[in-house]
Amino acid sequence: MTLETLLHQLDASTAGREMHSFAAMLYPWCRSITGDAFRDTLYAVNKRIPIKLHEVPSGTHVLDWTVPDEWNIRDAFIKNASGDRIIDFRNHNLHVVNYSVPVDHRMSLSELRPYLHSLPEKPDWIPYRTTYYKKTWGFCLTHRQLTDLPDGEYHVVIDSTLKPGHLTYGELFLPGQIEDEVLISVHCCHPSLANDNLSGIVVATRLAQELRRIDRRYSYRFLFVPGTIGAITWLSLNETVAARVAHGLVLTCIGDSGGFTYKKSRRSDTEIDRAAAHVLRWSKEQHRVVDFVPYGYDERQYCSPGFNLPVGCFMRSPHGEFPEYHTSGDNLDFVRPEALGSSLTTLLRIIEVLEGNYRYLNLYPKGEPQLGKRGLYGPVGEQVMATLWILNLADGEHSLLDIAERANIPFSTLKAAASKLLEQQLVATIA
Amino acid sequence: MTLETLLHQLDASTAGREMHSFAAMLYPWCRSITGDAFRDTLYAVNKRIPIKLHEVPSGTHVLDWTVPDEWNIRDAFIKNASGDRIIDFRNHNLHVVNYSVPVDHRMSLSELRPYLHSLPEKPDWIPYRTTYYKKTWGFCLTHRQLTDLPDGEYHVVIDSTLKPGHLTYGELFLPGQIEDEVLISVHCCHPSLANDNLSGIVVATRLAQELRRIDRRYSYRFLFVPGTIGAITWLSLNETVAARVAHGLVLTCIGDSGGFTYKKSRRSDTEIDRAAAHVLRWSKEQHRVVDFVPYGYDERQYCSPGFNLPVGCFMRSPHGEFPEYHTSGDNLDFVRPEALGSSLTTLLRIIEVLEGNYRYLNLYPKGEPQLGKRGLYGPVGEQVMATLWILNLADGEHSLLDIAERANIPFSTLKAAASKLLEQQLVATIA
Amino acid sequence: MTLETLLHQLDASTAGREMHSFAAMLYPWCRSITGDAFRDTLYAVNKRIPIKLHEVPSGTHVLDWTVPDEWNIRDAFIKNASGDRIIDFRNHNLHVVNYSVPVDHRMSLSELRPYLHSLPEKPDWIPYRTTYYKKTWGFCLTHRQLTDLPDGEYHVVIDSTLKPGHLTYGELFLPGQIEDEVLISVHCCHPSLANDNLSGIVVATRLAQELRRIDRRYSYRFLFVPGTIGAITWLSLNETVAARVAHGLVLTCIGDSGGFTYKKSRRSDTEIDRAAAHVLRWSKEQHRVVDFVPYGYDERQYCSPGFNLPVGCFMRSPHGEFPEYHTSGDNLDFVRPEALGSSLTTLLRIIEVLEGNYRYLNLYPKGEPQLGKRGLYGPVGEQVMATLWILNLADGEHSLLDIAERANIPFSTLKAAASKLLEQQLVATIA
Repeated sequence: MTLETLLHQLDASTAGREMHSFAAMLYPWCRSITGDAFRDTLYAVNKRIPIKLHEVPSGTHVLDWTVPDEWNIRDAFIKNASGDRIIDFRNHNLHVVNYSVPVDHRMSLSELRPYLHSLPEKPDWIPYRTTYYKKTWGFCLTHRQLTDLPDGEYHVVIDSTLKPGHLTYGELFLPGQIEDEVLISVHCCHPSLANDNLSGIVVATRLAQELRRIDRRYSYRFLFVPGTIGAITWLSLNETVAARVAHGLVLTCIGDSGGFTYKKSRRSDTEIDRAAAHVLRWSKEQHRVVDFVPYGYDERQYCSPGFNLPVGCFMRSPHGEFPEYHTSGDNLDFVRPEALGSSLTTLLRIIEVLEGNYRYLNLYPKGEPQLGKRGLYGPVGEQVMATLWILNLADGEHSLLDIAERANIPFSTLKAAASKLLEQQLVATIA
Repeated sequence: MTLETLLHQLDASTAGREMHSFAAMLYPWCRSITGDAFRDTLYAVNKRIPIKLHEVPSGTHVLDWTVPDEWNIRDAFIKNASGDRIIDFRNHNLHVVNYSVPVDHRMSLSELRPYLHSLPEKPDWIPYRTTYYKKTWGFCLTHRQLTDLPDGEYHVVIDSTLKPGHLTYGELFLPGQIEDEVLISVHCCHPSLANDNLSGIVVATRLAQELRRIDRRYSYRFLFVPGTIGAITWLSLNETVAARVAHGLVLTCIGDSGGFTYKKSRRSDTEIDRAAAHVLRWSKEQHRVVDFVPYGYDERQYCSPGFNLPVGCFMRSPHGEFPEYHTSGDNLDFVRPEALGSSLTTLLRIIEVLEGNYRYLNLYPKGEPQLGKRGLYGPVGEQVMATLWILNLADGEHSLLDIAERANIPFSTLKAAASKLLEQQLVATIA
Repeated sequence: MTLETLLHQLDASTAGREMHSFAAMLYPWCRSITGDAFRDTLYAVNKRIPIKLHEVPSGTHVLDWTVPDEWNIRDAFIKNASGDRIIDFRNHNLHVVNYSVPVDHRMSLSELRPYLHSLPEKPDWIPYRTTYYKKTWGFCLTHRQLTDLPDGEYHVVIDSTLKPGHLTYGELFLPGQIEDEVLISVHCCHPSLANDNLSGIVVATRLAQELRRIDRRYSYRFLFVPGTIGAITWLSLNETVAARVAHGLVLTCIGDSGGFTYKKSRRSDTEIDRAAAHVLRWSKEQHRVVDFVPYGYDERQYCSPGFNLPVGCFMRSPHGEFPEYHTSGDNLDFVRPEALGSSLTTLLRIIEVLEGNYRYLNLYPKGEPQLGKRGLYGPVGEQVMATLWILNLADGEHSLLDIAERANIPFSTLKAAASKLLEQQLVATIA
């Protein structure tokens, strides 16, 4: 099947609901950068697309970093003097600071206080905190819970383990006509956070399902990794593969109802940057294209100067710019099926540009070829203009995306016109 | 005579009236892309400037096209049942679809209806239609005429011929000091349409008359061609000549009272593009500079990728942007003598830039030469600033037009200052 | 001492007052492009910084110019019929047209009138006029004085000398680690004009005092010259030195209370141009950056095409844009101590950029180095962002100023972050 046919047939609203259901299934699990909940998430993905799981032992040196010990958690709570679980991991896994060391203490409120985190300005939400590289522990709770705590003795238990094990990541490779790869990377290390991480996981999974069905020019590589350390681990173990990445996208926060945000790669004018900007420009949704900054998601690693890959970051509301970010407010209600569906189709539109962005050569470059006798002329509208633009710029120097930008015509319209010109042997594709 | 002197002496308002008279003489003739009315038009031009007429036989292959049969028309009418000529070619030659095959039929209104063309939104104007490459026929009429037609039988006659003959075009070559050519091209294939085609013909004719009188650096080539097929024919037969075109302009629609529109060449930053933009910028008239698009007039052919000539299109109101376009409303009243006169002088100003756009070399490049002792210094105004700018940028890298743009000073002011610096041997011209 | 320490310790307001006092001392002297008042000014500078005085004989050929005769003046007046000095050089040295030849005449008002200059639109100010290269004389007076002059005979005396002597200029060279030089040039040829010339002299003097105290990467050269002829003389005698000028600034009109104006060098994108624009952008004062024009101060000479040095002009209100310009209104009240102080610190900030604008190489370019284990990570604010930006752009292609502009972070913040990264051996400086 061609990508054009797929785009024509795809029912984005059904796809959106299915992706949301998948997110709902994954939501309760207490993922971290290592551990069983991360593995379980990859197993669930694996039921949809045949990703391969890689296990990297704790202590492995990866670039400037070291794979940490593996963390798992069974239970955690704070009990008051009456023995009631007033803060309970079973209610919400954000209650425990991720990567907390095991603890079993009785302490006064003032002793406990430094280990408690809340958000005074958002008093009903539990914050999300981690302590991957500093051995400590803590609890997160709503600010109302915090201010309601009476003095007295508390029993604090975190039933976690932190010991040598593995860092896990998932990888799916879809071969295409050429070895050049399109990299799609999502982080999967956040516990119950829906937009920041689950939206990326479910859209990437569905995108891979769709791409498996089509004839592909490029090869595609999907990575499901823990943030930062996962991307660093993959890069460390795959330098040769990384050199084949022709275009790449980090996906995250693509389920909320905000418009699109595309963050350009460090190189800023690569084909993926231009393709994304072009598709967003013709999208019916609000959107903006922002410059690269060395803070954000795993594009930080892919765009580090020693790799400098053409990898951008595709988002809706960016990290830190929506109030629910890194709180319990980033839940399944915050993520919308229709937003997931539209993110999927928009990504496919970007891939349509990458797949179809050939250079053409006008075989009748002197004067205009007579279009009328070939049935290609008619009232001058977008179709005829697309044809004239391609003929005029099919000089081997302009790609179809170049022409789309110069002509201010959507890529897909130009692609259709190019196909007719190919049929009529007025243009040829340049390898 | 120098161009500066010519510009000083030229009486634009008299020239405007003379050009309008010439247009009035040409207006009634039923020109087409071939045929005797086209030839007659060239004969009339030939009385003013010694153009050479070229005749290219029907059937000649020119690039991807074929020269069509020659079309001539003697008479045409639609008679009602009473025998009255209710639509009469003798009243207005736009009444016949240009290139209509001969016809002599009696038919009902419903049979006739598909062959009738009107403009419902402009009910008093006759549209202009052609059928060069499809053998059919038709009549154009005002919408009021159309809606007034009663049922009944009509006698329809088009007394035309369409048979092997020739395509005709006119050419004038004015040699200059150098072989590099400035191409001026106008289409002459429209019947009674004043702005779209006659304005170009009469201004090009007058421009050639003026340029014949002056010392020319460049050689100049004027083409009077049928649109599209004429430019294609000339290009097909003159590839070697085309390679000598250093700058070029297609002239059309330069007689209406709208401001100027300069459409840039495909290459977009050539010297003619910059010269035209510079002159318009300092013009007292409204103006705009627009990007190249592969639709329009014969710049489409000159700017096709296999030629890619530095040819722009100089207009006032562009095709399709004035309501009278391609209707009987584009008549002699729509074209104004003063607009023709100002188009002429503006074109001469553009040519002044091309002719004078040398690079200079400051012969005293270290520090400022002492201008006072040479009588070149005084109160600091545009004259002194022009002198200082030339000295500062006369480094062999900047042309006088570069300096004009950088200094934001009109080219002619800089040209005058450059002449004085040349006299004082402070600068030298670079070949 | 480092420049950072100097900037930390410098008391700009005390410095401003001291510079104003120095200006007040120099204000009454009747400087010109040659002569003893110019020498006296250099002697006063020499008490603060060890400038070397150069004496160039009248008649010396310097580039296209000739060093003029030396001018000195003892007294001048216009007496009325009663013998009263109604215009008196002793009241204000602007009363005499600078470089006036000696005169001792009795003449009627109508004979005298052509030699009198006033400003009708500023009736209380005396204009400043010169006649360096035309042997004549004149008096300047307020317009009120002029209109009050009754008819009658006047006794006109200018007790000046104009004869072979010398042109004098001062020069201070401060060696640095490298031979590349930063040129600071001020004109010192104006009599009692405070902003236009004294502000430059006193700030340049103080700047040199400060730079003598620090460890310098660049060598610095300060020039105290008469305008135009002085710069031309220095360039003529120092072509080899000029070739070592890596960055340069002409200082003038930096004592008034207007915002900063930086006029770019002819090359427009040199490091000094970008450094000045960067510092002004982060300055708390109003400011603007304007393009080079070949009129102004001695940047005209340094930026002539045969030298084309990277020399900009640092001003507050530019010449001709404040009403007091070249009148007696440009006095010690018009110049403000706080403006002088802020000009000094702003210049030091520009020099801080030049001195610290190294390129760095990230020694861990693949992925981000783990900052946490080195104590360089924390809440993400300007400090962490500065660190991430440097690591991301320390690829040998970007200077620290490039990074500052790209990151939109002040240079000094980046400089501090770079120092920490150097300490941690995460980056290296590229020579």
